[in-house]
Amino acid sequence: MTETVARHDVVIVGAGPAGMTAAVYTGRALRSTLVVEKGIPGGQLNETDRIENWPGVAEPTSAPDLMAALRTQVERLGAEIVQDEVLGIEPGRQVHRVVMPRRAVEARAIILAPGSRPRALSTEGAARLTGRGVSYCATCDGFFFQGKRVVVVGAGDSGLMEALFLTRFADSVAIVVRHPKEDPRAIRASGVLRQRAASHPKIRFLWNRDVAEVVGERGVTAIRLRRLDTGEIEEVPADGIFVNVGHMPQTDFLRGSIPLDADGYIVTDSRLRTSVAGIFAAGDARIDAHRYAQAVIAAGEGATAALEAELYLAE
Amino acid sequence: MTETVARHDVVIVGAGPAGMTAAVYTGRALRSTLVVEKGIPGGQLNETDRIENWPGVAEPTSAPDLMAALRTQVERLGAEIVQDEVLGIEPGRQVHRVVMPRRAVEARAIILAPGSRPRALSTEGAARLTGRGVSYCATCDGFFFQGKRVVVVGAGDSGLMEALFLTRFADSVAIVVRHPKEDPRAIRASGVLRQRAASHPKIRFLWNRDVAEVVGERGVTAIRLRRLDTGEIEEVPADGIFVNVGHMPQTDFLRGSIPLDADGYIVTDSRLRTSVAGIFAAGDARIDAHRYAQAVIAAGEGATAALEAELYLAE
Repeated sequence: MTETVARHDVVIVGAGPAGMTAAVYTGRALRSTLVVEKGIPGGQLNETDRIENWPGVAEPTSAPDLMAALRTQVERLGAEIVQDEVLGIEPGRQVHRVVMPRRAVEARAIILAPGSRPRALSTEGAARLTGRGVSYCATCDGFFFQGKRVVVVGAGDSGLMEALFLTRFADSVAIVVRHPKEDPRAIRASGVLRQRAASHPKIRFLWNRDVAEVVGERGVTAIRLRRLDTGEIEEVPADGIFVNVGHMPQTDFLRGSIPLDADGYIVTDSRLRTSVAGIFAAGDARIDAHRYAQAVIAAGEGATAALEAELYLAE
Repeated sequence: MTETVARHDVVIVGAGPAGMTAAVYTGRALRSTLVVEKGIPGGQLNETDRIENWPGVAEPTSAPDLMAALRTQVERLGAEIVQDEVLGIEPGRQVHRVVMPRRAVEARAIILAPGSRPRALSTEGAARLTGRGVSYCATCDGFFFQGKRVVVVGAGDSGLMEALFLTRFADSVAIVVRHPKEDPRAIRASGVLRQRAASHPKIRFLWNRDVAEVVGERGVTAIRLRRLDTGEIEEVPADGIFVNVGHMPQTDFLRGSIPLDADGYIVTDSRLRTSVAGIFAAGDARIDAHRYAQAVIAAGEGATAALEAELYLAE
């Protein structure tokens, strides 16, 4: 059994917008607070090049700058942030254990804010150009593609919604579909969306193809597609590519201890309480929140979870 | 009938954190957006002297500074903010009318974010010293009273919760109660809270009194209380007074057009949709949100309502 080295009022798992905002509130309530983050604070925000929809930030900022400000704020209010990986939670009656590779800590309350990640496009150039034309969020980045040509990967409901949303900005939107047009599996979206996308003058479908390479030096300039019938490669000029092939909540470490839904999202009530007393969840790994995947919505949930944790601790 | 002078994609009622964040999102989605605010943008935030729990603002800021930044951001993203009073909403099928004293505008979608106001203490000195020791929010301002003496007005559940919360900061917390100790109406809070408050070493009850005056020049220095049996005035030295005598959602203009609950809060589903298609609500005038009354939670709701309005408009 890993040695338990400390006890905190609140342990927060994840230092994205939800976890950091929760820490602002619990720190400010003078609750001893430990934030554990396995990567770089900021969560999925770090995938975004330029942020201009964080309310109160008048001029566009960068994810590192916003997170640096949040970190300063959190630490000034007394919370501690450590880089470590939570391997599991062991719920208890009065106190819970949070297990990391070389130690464990006790927590009277836990706020789970591990976030989610978009399923990545694994083709050549995709990782290198993420935030430079490769985007996983049309709501976040669509605005930067006014008058541009974009490609969308993913033809489910959210892929087609994003394609339609992108027509508000882009001159042309090409949707890459892995199946031939006549294949009933080609588009998994609802009939209404399919109809609207098919009849939209800015949208065209590129059937029976997948993405072979994202091309560009400083930014995306073209997408190389592979025709799945012939294997032939063709190049489509494009300024951006929006990838919509699903999200993965980062909740594997909770399996067996906290109820998750079939897709791995943390189940809570409307007050963000899991079924375990004293354990709360906030942000994109939580059912409902992932529908939006927006930083300020996750931040609001972090504040809610912190206020509910305070009520719980005061009981 | 008032002349209808313009049509917008989205009209937002209220320029507090919820309405302004909604405008960031609808403006950025290139939806023509009009924000109507009857007073000063900022809503209830303007009652707070110093804000340090708005995430991403590393150093404490003032409500006017934060709202100025939000205003710059909203206007840069294309939304228009006007000072006017909405007298009523006339829901329609494809388009709704928003009626103001000298004009009406049409809106394909409406986001209601009128906020709420705490019931004010009307005694002498209270209005003048609001934000300078007179506070309507312990979660917001308790942190500034470390080592101080505070008075709490209101002995319902939330009054006692706030009193207990304030013991984390203040050296002493005196709760003013309008009834004698033996009167069953004296404390309207639940038994557990009453018990915890009664046994707390920092808390004392001042029975059968009400507030006659808040005393102080630049900040609160004392509270004058009136004994309700004798009429005698007594002065209690104090650095702050927290008022907890209820909130009033600013929703009178919606009566008859949008479903409200018994206390006047706007009823929505979890996606912030009212029962009228195309009309959404966000922030402290909405059921559920007023439980917290925190700016960043209202902001998250503003973003949610805007994303749901965009889905509605795209349909």
